[in-house]
Amino acid sequence: MPHSYITEGAEIYRQSFATIRAEAALARFTPEEEIVAVRMIHAAGMVGLEEHIRFSEGMAVAARAALEDGAPILCDAYMVSEGITRKRLPRENEVICTLRDPSVPDLAAKMSNTRSAAALELWRPHLQGAVVAIGNAPTALFHLLNMLEDSDCPRPAAIIGCPVGFIGAAESKEALMQDLPVPSMIVHGRLGGSAITVAAVNALASRVE
Amino acid sequence: MPHSYITEGAEIYRQSFATIRAEAALARFTPEEEIVAVRMIHAAGMVGLEEHIRFSEGMAVAARAALEDGAPILCDAYMVSEGITRKRLPRENEVICTLRDPSVPDLAAKMSNTRSAAALELWRPHLQGAVVAIGNAPTALFHLLNMLEDSDCPRPAAIIGCPVGFIGAAESKEALMQDLPVPSMIVHGRLGGSAITVAAVNALASRVE
Repeated sequence: MPHSYITEGAEIYRQSFATIRAEAALARFTPEEEIVAVRMIHAAGMVGLEEHIRFSEGMAVAARAALEDGAPILCDAYMVSEGITRKRLPRENEVICTLRDPSVPDLAAKMSNTRSAAALELWRPHLQGAVVAIGNAPTALFHLLNMLEDSDCPRPAAIIGCPVGFIGAAESKEALMQDLPVPSMIVHGRLGGSAITVAAVNALASRVE
Repeated sequence: MPHSYITEGAEIYRQSFATIRAEAALARFTPEEEIVAVRMIHAAGMVGLEEHIRFSEGMAVAARAALEDGAPILCDAYMVSEGITRKRLPRENEVICTLRDPSVPDLAAKMSNTRSAAALELWRPHLQGAVVAIGNAPTALFHLLNMLEDSDCPRPAAIIGCPVGFIGAAESKEALMQDLPVPSMIVHGRLGGSAITVAAVNALASRVE
């Protein structure tokens, strides 16, 4: 006998978000932050993720304003750039991932760093006022912080810093919140990744749930 | 002062995988399954994920054999197809996602189902002997199970069933393990998603860590 299940996308979203709001501890977020946290929990399938989410003051407002102003979105991985829902973007914002640029392998060798970090050097012409979405590589986030130590480096409008993993991820995110070169958000510790990062971008791009 | 951090990709992987093997409860997995579980934990940044991972008997061996035989990989979402590391594939296996096929919106309307489910109808010519990777939509996994109730429907070699979320995800994965139309693996409950699914494919494609 065929399985029966809810087949209407809008109804699945509605019930999912209602479940999250019934179960998760969202009271400490501002209304602008709450929308983002809920979508991140949704992407992770994990109530409890909210405990690890931290926004610097005004980050959600700043990131949304930048996107509504047409800011490009700079992504460290194709799983991030590919996941962003284009029809949610308020100004057909450009979504940029430079990881497969042919110059990256040589650049990485010259820098003695990962390709993920080297690819950020190609962000410089797009960086001013951009929204940065790092959802994979701790080395990318560390390298961005080092780039921004140079006061001549263009400033993004906001940074979503959610690299994932066991080596450097937690440390790179703590460093971001300590340096706080621009308004930023992180998921503390090892958790993070492309799905959570994409969810944050999609929530900041549109209030539609 | 610039942040200092490990910049060598191979060393990051080595330390990450060593940390996972030191912390995670992996004893119940066969050697072929363990490689997959470790990479899934790595992608999620979450020791403890292993408790929720379940393989049907022989699934890891069957999926690896299919890939080594050149099987295509059928993905329900572009975040999955985009994340698969092409150079790990043993036979330049085709990676297919049909979600953006122009026929999908009309097909979904006709089926009264999601686009994710409708897109699977376009898998039929590729399905025989394929490795299926569902990392997003519970409706896709439910629809695949319903397709496979027809004995004339071609059989994939193995199914990675890791849709994520709050509505239907847990139920669709339990249904997969109950029906077990072909060797399959799941992550029980709400957890899942594209990163975990990609990690499973990448681990089954190559033993290189």
